[in-house]
Amino acid sequence: MKGNLLVVHGGGPTAVINSSLYGVIREAERNESIGSVYGALGGTAGVLAEKFIDFSTVPSAEIEMLKQTPSTAIGTSRTPLTPEDYDRMISIFKKHNIKYVLFNGGNGSMDTCGKLYRAAKDEDIRVVGIPKTIDNDIAITDHCPGYGSAARFVAQTVAEIAQDVRSMPIHVSIVETMGRNAGWITAAAALAATEYSCGPDRIYLPEIAFDEDKFLSDVQSIYDRKGYAIIVASEGLKKADHTPIVDPIFKIRRDTYFGDVGAHLAELVLKNLGIKARSEKPGIAGRASILNQSSVDREEAIQAGAAACRAALEGKTGVMIGFKRLSSDPYQMEIMDVPIEEVMLHERMMPKEFINEDGTGVTEKFTEWCRPLVGGDLLKFAWFNK
Amino acid sequence: MKGNLLVVHGGGPTAVINSSLYGVIREAERNESIGSVYGALGGTAGVLAEKFIDFSTVPSAEIEMLKQTPSTAIGTSRTPLTPEDYDRMISIFKKHNIKYVLFNGGNGSMDTCGKLYRAAKDEDIRVVGIPKTIDNDIAITDHCPGYGSAARFVAQTVAEIAQDVRSMPIHVSIVETMGRNAGWITAAAALAATEYSCGPDRIYLPEIAFDEDKFLSDVQSIYDRKGYAIIVASEGLKKADHTPIVDPIFKIRRDTYFGDVGAHLAELVLKNLGIKARSEKPGIAGRASILNQSSVDREEAIQAGAAACRAALEGKTGVMIGFKRLSSDPYQMEIMDVPIEEVMLHERMMPKEFINEDGTGVTEKFTEWCRPLVGGDLLKFAWFNK
Repeated sequence: MKGNLLVVHGGGPTAVINSSLYGVIREAERNESIGSVYGALGGTAGVLAEKFIDFSTVPSAEIEMLKQTPSTAIGTSRTPLTPEDYDRMISIFKKHNIKYVLFNGGNGSMDTCGKLYRAAKDEDIRVVGIPKTIDNDIAITDHCPGYGSAARFVAQTVAEIAQDVRSMPIHVSIVETMGRNAGWITAAAALAATEYSCGPDRIYLPEIAFDEDKFLSDVQSIYDRKGYAIIVASEGLKKADHTPIVDPIFKIRRDTYFGDVGAHLAELVLKNLGIKARSEKPGIAGRASILNQSSVDREEAIQAGAAACRAALEGKTGVMIGFKRLSSDPYQMEIMDVPIEEVMLHERMMPKEFINEDGTGVTEKFTEWCRPLVGGDLLKFAWFNK
Repeated sequence: MKGNLLVVHGGGPTAVINSSLYGVIREAERNESIGSVYGALGGTAGVLAEKFIDFSTVPSAEIEMLKQTPSTAIGTSRTPLTPEDYDRMISIFKKHNIKYVLFNGGNGSMDTCGKLYRAAKDEDIRVVGIPKTIDNDIAITDHCPGYGSAARFVAQTVAEIAQDVRSMPIHVSIVETMGRNAGWITAAAALAATEYSCGPDRIYLPEIAFDEDKFLSDVQSIYDRKGYAIIVASEGLKKADHTPIVDPIFKIRRDTYFGDVGAHLAELVLKNLGIKARSEKPGIAGRASILNQSSVDREEAIQAGAAACRAALEGKTGVMIGFKRLSSDPYQMEIMDVPIEEVMLHERMMPKEFINEDGTGVTEKFTEWCRPLVGGDLLKFAWFNK
């Protein structure tokens, strides 16, 4: 089945979504059934506007740069689609002789991918999903491309901040991490604790109802003992009634905007304990940091792109590429196909076995699971003021 | 004059203060006049408590790790000193046969260094300063070790955030940067704009009174044109009356704590323009990032440490090591001695010629000055959605 191939990006970017694009392009080049490899410029909105780039027109050196380019080099979108939009996309694919459509995105995009697959069922068009999310919340797959790098960023950054804070022990440091509903990224801060660096004293996950009194008494006792405290907190912390611990500050149409969790916790410490506190919020920097890109994550993202390309060529459609873990030490992973309808709009939270009894940290089971994904040891620090 | 050498760290750390320590240790090893090289554990508080580490007891591999260790590996302090403390320090030096004292710190520490030099004038003790500050606000020297790495972090991080934001153009991004009084770090964001990455639309420096109305109308017009906006703002923005643009949230003893400037500006955009906005605040991560360490900064920090050691051996005292720029392109710098009394508690702001007419960005003169300090090109990004 000779035809063109189109890659579409959806949702918020990661540090390796362009590596998957790279994997698709290089795999497609090796295959004669594929005519041109296109990228939709600006996600599904780009498809509907018929804005495509033909990668055969791009110098090879620029294609290589994809592996070190954060965000998405072809742009993405988050516009909701109507049923008519799916039909329009099908006609656009036919017009451009596009027979292979690879959708790279998170839960929202896998939903789009599944709907497109249904709309294309009677057509000569194959639709395959490539998972991508820093949040690691896609079902069935062991983990998602994008997560390992976000995890490495958090682990390395918390190690660095902790080293900074302990060198002049005068304050409580709150580090706010991304991941509004699932705590995977926040949990990765536990990896900061190594023989060569110190980790967080407490980790607060969005899966666990936040207890303000316990937080304050914990911080007080850590501070009394050490003269400082390192706290890592998810941006999405919630009270027992599932409402955010921070107040809404504004509404624009359907979207509500909340204050920053890190700043809120620092203020709690200041006002209730009278202890110096400050918060850091790397935010988007954490999903765009190429220097903290995990080599394992990058390689797996490339493989996922290549595997999606091969799956479509083999006649598969309505599947998403997933990872199955064979072993954590040594790390062994194999690629599998996941029926797209099984992942559509499921959100995968941290399982109980990964969260400690107290709900303020993670288990060894989690760190064993997470460690291979961040791609090698963190930097080693010297520390003499023991 | 045979004697021991002591290194003391003061104030907040940088990404290369340990590199200066490395430079001191390696230079001292080569010189027979120096007995032991000590580090004060925990700054001047460590001196007063006679807590020292003797680096001859440390394996060489750990000394090498200093070059990639953020914060300070021997600890630092910010405790105010009494006149009696200086006298006590002199007796402690004599007790431990310390004849060479190297003080590594910013403006506050250079003040301490100057006072110690005066107290030690009639003694057989030489006091030399090594400059260190991410803020780059020490007088006379062209720049300070620590600044180049903080500048590289800001430039690289803003380039990455900007790439992320433009790939899904739906919001106004505010990046808050460190540097409460001087705009040097904030200004470095201008380097994000290269052939391979996009830079900030506006840069707001603490030297320029913040005009809220102009800010809002500028953001609106940038957003109307591009669909997003990248704003970099100093944590220390002030109104025309020199008060912070954010409200104080709490007081502990003499210290007043203010809200975050980035969050405040994002809220202004949300509430006044009804445009999606969010802020990022890497904060301390920016001075502790080893992956963004500037190779030039690291090398100069090592040289500054070695030069301070040599200066003390040559009989100099009451001087700080400084840099004199001979040329920006090619970059040529030479080390000079600065009388410590000329730098004590002077704070160097951005000069007018480095700030653009509008007060919302920098001049080419600044970027020419700043570029060599960040140590080589930023990462190159691919971008197709033009």
